[in-house]
Amino acid sequence: MDIKHYMDTVGRQARQAARGLAKATGQAKNTALHAIAAALLREQAVLMADNAKDLAAGQKNGLEAALLDRLALTPARIQTMSDGLQQIAGLPDPVGEITDLHYQASGIQVGKMRVPLGVIGIIYESRPNVTADAAALCLKSGNATILRGGSEALHSNQAIARCIHHGLAEAGLPETAVQVIETTDRAAVGRLITMQEDVDVIIPRGGKSLIARISAEAKVPVIKHLDGICHVFIDRSADIEKAVSVAFNAKTQRYGTCNTLETLLVDAPIAAAVLPTLAAQYRAKGVELRGCAATCALIPACQTATEADWQTEYLAPILSIRIVDGIDQAIAHIDAYSSNHTESIVTQDYTRAQQFLREVDSSSVMVNTSTRFADGFEYGLGAEIGISTDKLHARGPVGLEGLTSQKFIVLGDGHIRA
Amino acid sequence: MDIKHYMDTVGRQARQAARGLAKATGQAKNTALHAIAAALLREQAVLMADNAKDLAAGQKNGLEAALLDRLALTPARIQTMSDGLQQIAGLPDPVGEITDLHYQASGIQVGKMRVPLGVIGIIYESRPNVTADAAALCLKSGNATILRGGSEALHSNQAIARCIHHGLAEAGLPETAVQVIETTDRAAVGRLITMQEDVDVIIPRGGKSLIARISAEAKVPVIKHLDGICHVFIDRSADIEKAVSVAFNAKTQRYGTCNTLETLLVDAPIAAAVLPTLAAQYRAKGVELRGCAATCALIPACQTATEADWQTEYLAPILSIRIVDGIDQAIAHIDAYSSNHTESIVTQDYTRAQQFLREVDSSSVMVNTSTRFADGFEYGLGAEIGISTDKLHARGPVGLEGLTSQKFIVLGDGHIRA
Repeated sequence: MDIKHYMDTVGRQARQAARGLAKATGQAKNTALHAIAAALLREQAVLMADNAKDLAAGQKNGLEAALLDRLALTPARIQTMSDGLQQIAGLPDPVGEITDLHYQASGIQVGKMRVPLGVIGIIYESRPNVTADAAALCLKSGNATILRGGSEALHSNQAIARCIHHGLAEAGLPETAVQVIETTDRAAVGRLITMQEDVDVIIPRGGKSLIARISAEAKVPVIKHLDGICHVFIDRSADIEKAVSVAFNAKTQRYGTCNTLETLLVDAPIAAAVLPTLAAQYRAKGVELRGCAATCALIPACQTATEADWQTEYLAPILSIRIVDGIDQAIAHIDAYSSNHTESIVTQDYTRAQQFLREVDSSSVMVNTSTRFADGFEYGLGAEIGISTDKLHARGPVGLEGLTSQKFIVLGDGHIRA
Repeated sequence: MDIKHYMDTVGRQARQAARGLAKATGQAKNTALHAIAAALLREQAVLMADNAKDLAAGQKNGLEAALLDRLALTPARIQTMSDGLQQIAGLPDPVGEITDLHYQASGIQVGKMRVPLGVIGIIYESRPNVTADAAALCLKSGNATILRGGSEALHSNQAIARCIHHGLAEAGLPETAVQVIETTDRAAVGRLITMQEDVDVIIPRGGKSLIARISAEAKVPVIKHLDGICHVFIDRSADIEKAVSVAFNAKTQRYGTCNTLETLLVDAPIAAAVLPTLAAQYRAKGVELRGCAATCALIPACQTATEADWQTEYLAPILSIRIVDGIDQAIAHIDAYSSNHTESIVTQDYTRAQQFLREVDSSSVMVNTSTRFADGFEYGLGAEIGISTDKLHARGPVGLEGLTSQKFIVLGDGHIRA
């Protein structure tokens, strides 16, 4: 297979489809989404048979049990995928939304209209449900999609793609609006991320090394999420009950998510009042604690944290704890070690709450709230294609709005410039 | 000079200054802007003496008259620069603005807060006033700036930088908030655009080749403006008087600007009614006309346009004209040849006005308005650092808002996720 030629054809077809999709009515896009949702349920047996091929190959190639589990399609997972598409169909159409339309002194009316980005390339690993989710979000926002899933999920992704194409055809939309790359050759990714003419943005979803590699090599803009080293800072004036509750929830509600607390910062004057209670709760839950010297002096069975701990996203029942001398030192620690994902302060002090909100440079900054709320659904975005730790374009949870852009529109009545 | 070491120091200093600037009050930033404005007037003699060195070197090196003119500082130009700074001081502070704060069903309040991007690198040519303008816009939006002007303006830029540093110091802000690169070595640019750790965005201002080169080589995101091949489409149902007025103004109000009309598209049924009048006006003004065969059949002394004409931003009293068969053909021509800067339709037809607004994928799309209005001041942005033809982050005229980002803020009262 001539990868360059193949990818260039995919890109050209996507660009062509994007022109049509940008004009598609909300009704046509929703018809397609409902039809895809129905096709996934109808084709359940086929999806599972194709998925079984991937699972068998995975087992043969010694894929870890956790990865095999992520790869597996079950009737329940297919139902969830189908429900997700129905939900996306139910969201308002972002395309064509006009905001801020106002008259200027010259007499022209100036406003902004929301428009699709064009062609979006998605590069992801194992989970086949991403194929349906990502395609649906891009379709709803009027974008053509080029999907490149993990090679271990190739048959599953192609089976899902057939359902997508069926739904697109039923709605009279071009099947090339969603293309799944048919080769597992890595050169296809290399080409995809440099096709500046035909790809407007790349969204990688997967492990840190995948994302770092793509960001380094891409010529096309990348909306990316690196890691989530999230902090909670318990200020000296925190309500102790709220502090314990928020810090416990942020760490233990789920361990493997990017918005999970990884380093707890505690203001020195409140440490003795809050840490022993909190440590007991963490320990009862089986969370390993690694603290600075002052922390270890306050709580039993605390391992000494090293420099590496402050830099680590554990994604596991491990928590590092540091006692700091006031909010400025807390913010300095966050500046130095945070991945700029999500940080929260627990405080009853008005001024310090304001200072934290203003000075912490992360995609989500919270007051008296568990970091676990940093999520597109919890923020009311309706759906989420990922969480961006970038600053340009989209920051934090990325929903339909992050998959669009705004152009200026100007309405006149023969207005000319003097 | 060890360029890498020098640039890395500049970058580190800028990152450090950006932390302070992000917290700076609107009052401190305005104090600095007023102090810089005053210093420019006070130091007029020094500025002109340093500028004279650049002009002498330029003459010696055979710089074109047009470039020498752009390089020259006069008392009037220094006054304009100073006035510009006062105006920017008068704009509202974009930093810290909170929007969309609303309650979610969970009880948390979610909103967005506008924050600086961090460190902005500006790469530009000849005009020394960019040094003051760009620094002021970045300062107002809370960003640290690294400025790299043309080597032909080195002394002028350094003299302006001294005024800027004086003003920053007077306001208690770090002088490293605005740094002018002191070497003319091209390797400095190469380093600047790849310093991902310490530079958040690059804004090149200059000719197309400069911008294309920087975009190709940058590792840091670039907000760029390539060319402005702008179109006016006179629809069959246009009001003839408005059509003539808009098309004439869009071409002739100024020839050298990026929002100037370069290709006029005329719907076949209205061509005979509109083109002869319009052509006479253009010709009276000295505009050379290059048309398709049908156009040349309608108007005298029309040169035949070639494929190259549709692809050219003349920036000169030359206009290409094509007669098309309806709005779909007009949009197809725009899709094929436009630089996605600014396009305008002249029409009295409601449906086609809507279609043009929706389907044309340019940073500004207009109805019955001269393309010359595509400008930050005319749009009410207060100031403009450039016009972006990109889709991500900032599109169209970029003002203070385009130099900022939004983070999510979440306010709770001990809220945890269930």
